[in-house]
Amino acid sequence: MEKKLSLVGAGPGDPDLISVKGIKTLAQADVVLYDALVHPELLNYVPSKALKIYVGKRAGKHSYKQEEINELIIENVFSHGHVVRLKGGDPFIFARGKEEIDYAESFGIRTQVVPGISSINLAGMYGLPLTTRGINESFWVVTATTKSGELSRDVAKVAETSATAIFLMGLRKSAAISEAYALQDKADLPAAIVSNGSLANAKVYRTTVGQLAHTIREQKVASPGIILVGESLAQQIDFTTIKNIKQHVTQI
Amino acid sequence: MEKKLSLVGAGPGDPDLISVKGIKTLAQADVVLYDALVHPELLNYVPSKALKIYVGKRAGKHSYKQEEINELIIENVFSHGHVVRLKGGDPFIFARGKEEIDYAESFGIRTQVVPGISSINLAGMYGLPLTTRGINESFWVVTATTKSGELSRDVAKVAETSATAIFLMGLRKSAAISEAYALQDKADLPAAIVSNGSLANAKVYRTTVGQLAHTIREQKVASPGIILVGESLAQQIDFTTIKNIKQHVTQI
Repeated sequence: MEKKLSLVGAGPGDPDLISVKGIKTLAQADVVLYDALVHPELLNYVPSKALKIYVGKRAGKHSYKQEEINELIIENVFSHGHVVRLKGGDPFIFARGKEEIDYAESFGIRTQVVPGISSINLAGMYGLPLTTRGINESFWVVTATTKSGELSRDVAKVAETSATAIFLMGLRKSAAISEAYALQDKADLPAAIVSNGSLANAKVYRTTVGQLAHTIREQKVASPGIILVGESLAQQIDFTTIKNIKQHVTQI
Repeated sequence: MEKKLSLVGAGPGDPDLISVKGIKTLAQADVVLYDALVHPELLNYVPSKALKIYVGKRAGKHSYKQEEINELIIENVFSHGHVVRLKGGDPFIFARGKEEIDYAESFGIRTQVVPGISSINLAGMYGLPLTTRGINESFWVVTATTKSGELSRDVAKVAETSATAIFLMGLRKSAAISEAYALQDKADLPAAIVSNGSLANAKVYRTTVGQLAHTIREQKVASPGIILVGESLAQQIDFTTIKNIKQHVTQI
């Protein structure tokens, strides 16, 4: 029995957006610990004899604390062998993957990380450019909601720059995001919200940063969602005459 | 014959880091246009009767301009049907994917984007946290070298913040990156360089932002490489006692 922990990124929704290495790793699992945002079809890659343990949040039920998940990993590695921790998106982008790796290694457990496509990469699927040559040269990824539930101070900082901002966990902080940009006289900057990732019920809403809260309320935007803000989002290259990748896009 | 363009992200090196959707799309290609950073094994997923056209740069030989690639896409869609444009990393992260999509759509061609794991996601594979709860809440991705070959102005801006910086195309701009941080009295900030992505010859170098140019010269760091800078990179969670994912890491 090989005692090992593999952290695998499940991708941004669509189960076909996991990597080939991810499914090969799932096929070698003795135990899988999976999150709420993981697509259930991915469990089909797991051997039927493997334990499948749900550790996400469930409405009204017990949800696992990080410390409990860490303990579950250790217990299952020692009792069963190869534990695969399957996390939505990429296990190292705001996903506490490092804590799980470090904790397992403190017990001498061998670990590996299989990166995943993050919700950040959804912009491309919906034709939203994060950067445009000649317009801006960077994008800045901010978790709008901090550890303590407050607004990140980086929201104000990103509003001062020309970087395209990608806010994760930002739907409930949309009014504060608008305010940060309004303070810089940038309320009219183009914004977009991608809701439900790459799933069949994905929706993309185009709006302005000043109208974020209004759009979320009026359009009943569903969680999880990412918010994008920046000049680059409105850029159309001038030979564009026909658009056809916009089947999910609602123009506000 | 279905006339279509698919932009597919090949991932950061290791051919198993392409998505399942990526290989399904390659299997339906009539023509594949592929870049220099694409792993040759990925072409095994392409039907044998499909055309495979290399459009990357080759030492001493003609390299395709973006305009020529755009034209090749259009010609091949009309002559052969489904063109797959296979690009290293993610087609929408500093990869001019949007230009190719927009140009094809201006001819009425249907398009889709299959996102890829970017070199940004490599940090996790090597245990380098982009953010650490309580230390910082964001990371900022900057192409250090602009369109005109100059240093991006965003290099100076990112040095002013607590965001972890990820510099793409930064190896040749390392002295300027060091200088930007030195101006903020931050020459001692932890830095890392990941060279050759997720390939078998990948190398990770840990250093400080002030020592970047020295490290690149002394260690003969190979291109392509990404540079990471930030307090978060040095964070070890205090229960860490044993490390074993560091087989590629050279401690400077």
